[in-house]
Formats: sequence, structure tokens, C-alpha cells
Amino acid sequence: MADMAAAWEPVPRSRTFELVLARIEEQILAGRLRVGDRLPPERELVDMLGVSRAAVREALRVLEAQGVLRSRVGTGPSSGTVIAAMPDAGLTQLLRLHIALANFPMGDVVEARATLERASARLAAQLVTEDGLERIRDPLLRMDDASLPREHFNDCDTDFHVAIAEAGGNRLMADMTIAVRNAVRHTLLTVFNKLDDWEKVASRLRAEHHAIYEAIAAGDTEAAGDLVEAHVRGFHQDIVKKIMDGADPAAP
Amino acid sequence: MADMAAAWEPVPRSRTFELVLARIEEQILAGRLRVGDRLPPERELVDMLGVSRAAVREALRVLEAQGVLRSRVGTGPSSGTVIAAMPDAGLTQLLRLHIALANFPMGDVVEARATLERASARLAAQLVTEDGLERIRDPLLRMDDASLPREHFNDCDTDFHVAIAEAGGNRLMADMTIAVRNAVRHTLLTVFNKLDDWEKVASRLRAEHHAIYEAIAAGDTEAAGDLVEAHVRGFHQDIVKKIMDGADPAAP
Repeated sequence: MADMAAAWEPVPRSRTFELVLARIEEQILAGRLRVGDRLPPERELVDMLGVSRAAVREALRVLEAQGVLRSRVGTGPSSGTVIAAMPDAGLTQLLRLHIALANFPMGDVVEARATLERASARLAAQLVTEDGLERIRDPLLRMDDASLPREHFNDCDTDFHVAIAEAGGNRLMADMTIAVRNAVRHTLLTVFNKLDDWEKVASRLRAEHHAIYEAIAAGDTEAAGDLVEAHVRGFHQDIVKKIMDGADPAAP
Repeated sequence: MADMAAAWEPVPRSRTFELVLARIEEQILAGRLRVGDRLPPERELVDMLGVSRAAVREALRVLEAQGVLRSRVGTGPSSGTVIAAMPDAGLTQLLRLHIALANFPMGDVVEARATLERASARLAAQLVTEDGLERIRDPLLRMDDASLPREHFNDCDTDFHVAIAEAGGNRLMADMTIAVRNAVRHTLLTVFNKLDDWEKVASRLRAEHHAIYEAIAAGDTEAAGDLVEAHVRGFHQDIVKKIMDGADPAAP
């Protein structure tokens, strides 16, 4: 992890709060702190962990920002700092930032999308409900409107893939799929805006989306997975790669 | 997201810092702030965003804790707050916590593991180097020692799966695979410790691990993927599920 230079950098002021973070994480991973449980008061944490009040406060603030803790005001039995079910938004935001900053090669991101979306589409074909199908169909039909601006097309495209990820009913798979799909949203919009033959590309995407929808609606697991994988890989190979190779190489 | 009760909760003191976070995230996702870039000084952020200095400081502290920012002390050209490549540890820690707290059904986690590890093993069979093979072989051979305590067996088992995830050379896929594998580490150890027929189970795991290793070493993509998927699903179906059904239902 640390290279030689980093090993000699001054110890950051905030070192102790990371120890507090680690202690709280241990309790959560061991199942001793669960969603809805109250954290011991600041004072007690200071005593138990032998650290400063400032370090405890800093750690609590970070966990709050991550969505691990929630403060409830008041004096009743439900007041105080409780362990919260982390909102999916927090995870997908961090994964999105991580993908943007880690500057993963586009090929790695495409591989991850192909893997996750293939698996999600297979689950969707097996488990989708009437309601879930409707949520996939809605952005699908909106993309059929030829006058839709590219930016809105991109939004609907994201919604379509997110709805498929959610239709399988596996929240963890869906969270990862959505985070990776969202991470490429900006790149895809850049590509859409640079295309000279936008109408031709949009037609191709529409046809592929409809075929994917039909396979999921028909409960055809193999076709749904194969079509999504081919859609993700083909679009990047034939369209994104060509545009990006001539464009900003540092874009995520 | 918010239910009715939550909608009427008092606005947390810290609301503005989230706006600051969102602004900085926008700059990163749009590619205007990249790894190594310096963030404008606190003062300037206060002016540009029209928020209090406290809100800016809070946001910076959260981003530092997430690994998005790094402070460099001193007065030279490399001092100040710079955008850092987020360490993988930060992402896997958050994903681990998220999985523990979201309390995903075990079946969802197994499905995610099967999907990610199948894909990782296929990549490994295609791309592994001599060095990568050695890193897979090392924990494999350590698990052959019948006197290895269960806890160490579990550590080696984790190392084995992590080495396969890394052998494919796709950092994003590896990060997600590792986070999900680490999230079940505690559950698996609990299961290992409860087994009456530990030696029989360990023999089965050893045989499956060796077969996976041979397929990767032989570059057999199909076999490597199929064997890992069967290993993950079979172990949970035949062993973990039986033990967990009679045990702590809230364990992740």
C-alpha cells in the first residue's frame, strides 16, 4: 500500500479518529452492533477507547457522512446516535467517485458492466414481476421518440439498465450494477454528443433494447443474458472506443 | 428513500456540507478535477460556494476520510489539499460495511460472489502470469497442511480467492470481488468453527481449490469459471446454509 515516500510523511493530525472508526467497524462486522442499535454516548467511547473527545467526534462525523450512523435529536428512548441501514446512494456515490478517480482503463469498466449486467438480466428473466416489467418498458418506450434530445436519451438509457438490474430482486447485485452504469454516464453523454450519425446509433440502441426487453418478458434467461452482454460489449467496441480514442484519454 | 417520519425530522446541522460535497463530486465526475490536482484553498471555496467555512471544513474532512483528498503539509508547490487516487481499502471497507448493515439475504451475497468470481476466474485463466499463479498457489499449498487451525484455513481461503480475482488484471472487478469475499469472511469462520466434520469439509474444499487452480494454470477458461461458480454455490448450499439455518439469522 504505502510506498517509501509515503512511509516518511508526517503522521496526519487525524490518525486517532481512524482507530475509532476501525473499532466501530469491528463491532458491526462481528454483528454486535446492528441496524437500530444505539451507539454508546461520546463520553463512554472516550473512556473505553482511551482517545480524545475530538477523535471520537471526528469518527462519528465520518460515519454519519457515510450513512452508517444517524443522529436522532430529543431525549426519548429513540434519541441519540443509532446505527442506520446505509442508504444505497452512499455506496453508489463512493463507487462512482472511485471509478472516476481510480481511472480504471475503459476496458476494465466494460468488462465489469458486461459481467454484472449479464447476470442481472438473467435474474430479471427468471424473477421479474409485472411491475418490474413496466419499469423497464417505460424508459424503453420513451427512447422510441425520435425527437428526444441526446441527454434525455442517455438518462432513459441509464434508467432502462437500472430497471433491469432492480428487476432481479438482488439488491447487492443491483447496487453494484447501478454504480458501474452511473460511473460511465458522463462518458456516454460525451460520446453521444460527438456522434455525427446520431440517428443511426440511436436506431441500433433502440433495436437492441427492444430485443433485451422481449427476452426478459418471455423469461428467456439465456437470450436475456447473451443480448445484454453483446449490447454492452458491442456498443463500446463499435462506438465508444472509436470516439474516445480520438478524444480526452483521461476521461473515465 | 425517505418515509413520512423521516420527512419531518429536523434538518441536521450538517446539511450544507453535503452541498459542498456534491459540488466537488461534480467537478471530479466531469473530469475537471483529477488525481494530483490541488483543490482551491478553503477561503476560495467559501467565496465560490457561498457557504460557511465550517461547512467547507466538514466536507473536506469527509472527503479525506474517504480517501478522495490528501493533505500535504509545508509551503512548497506540492503542499495543500490534493485529489488522491482513492485507496482500494477505502472502497472495500465501505462495501464490506454496507453488506454487513444492509443485511442482504445470504442468497443475494452468494449470487453476487458466484457472478463476480466466475468472471474473475475466466479472466485469470486467460491472463494470469507466472507471478500471479504463484500467488494463487501459495495459499493453496498452505491449506494442504492438515494441522492448520480453522481460522488460518479461512485466511488462506480468502487469500486464494483474492489472488484469483487479482490475477485477471482487472482492478475494478478485483475490488468488487474482494469486497464481497471479505464481507463473508466472518460468517464463514463462524461456520467453520461449528462444523463437527471439519476434516471432511476441509478435504472437499482442498480438492475443489486444486481443480480450480489446475484449470486456471491450464488456461481453460470454461472450466475455471464453471468450477469456481460450482464451488461457491455448492459450499453455501451444502454447508453454510445448513449451519446458518440453525444459527444466528442476523449474521450477514
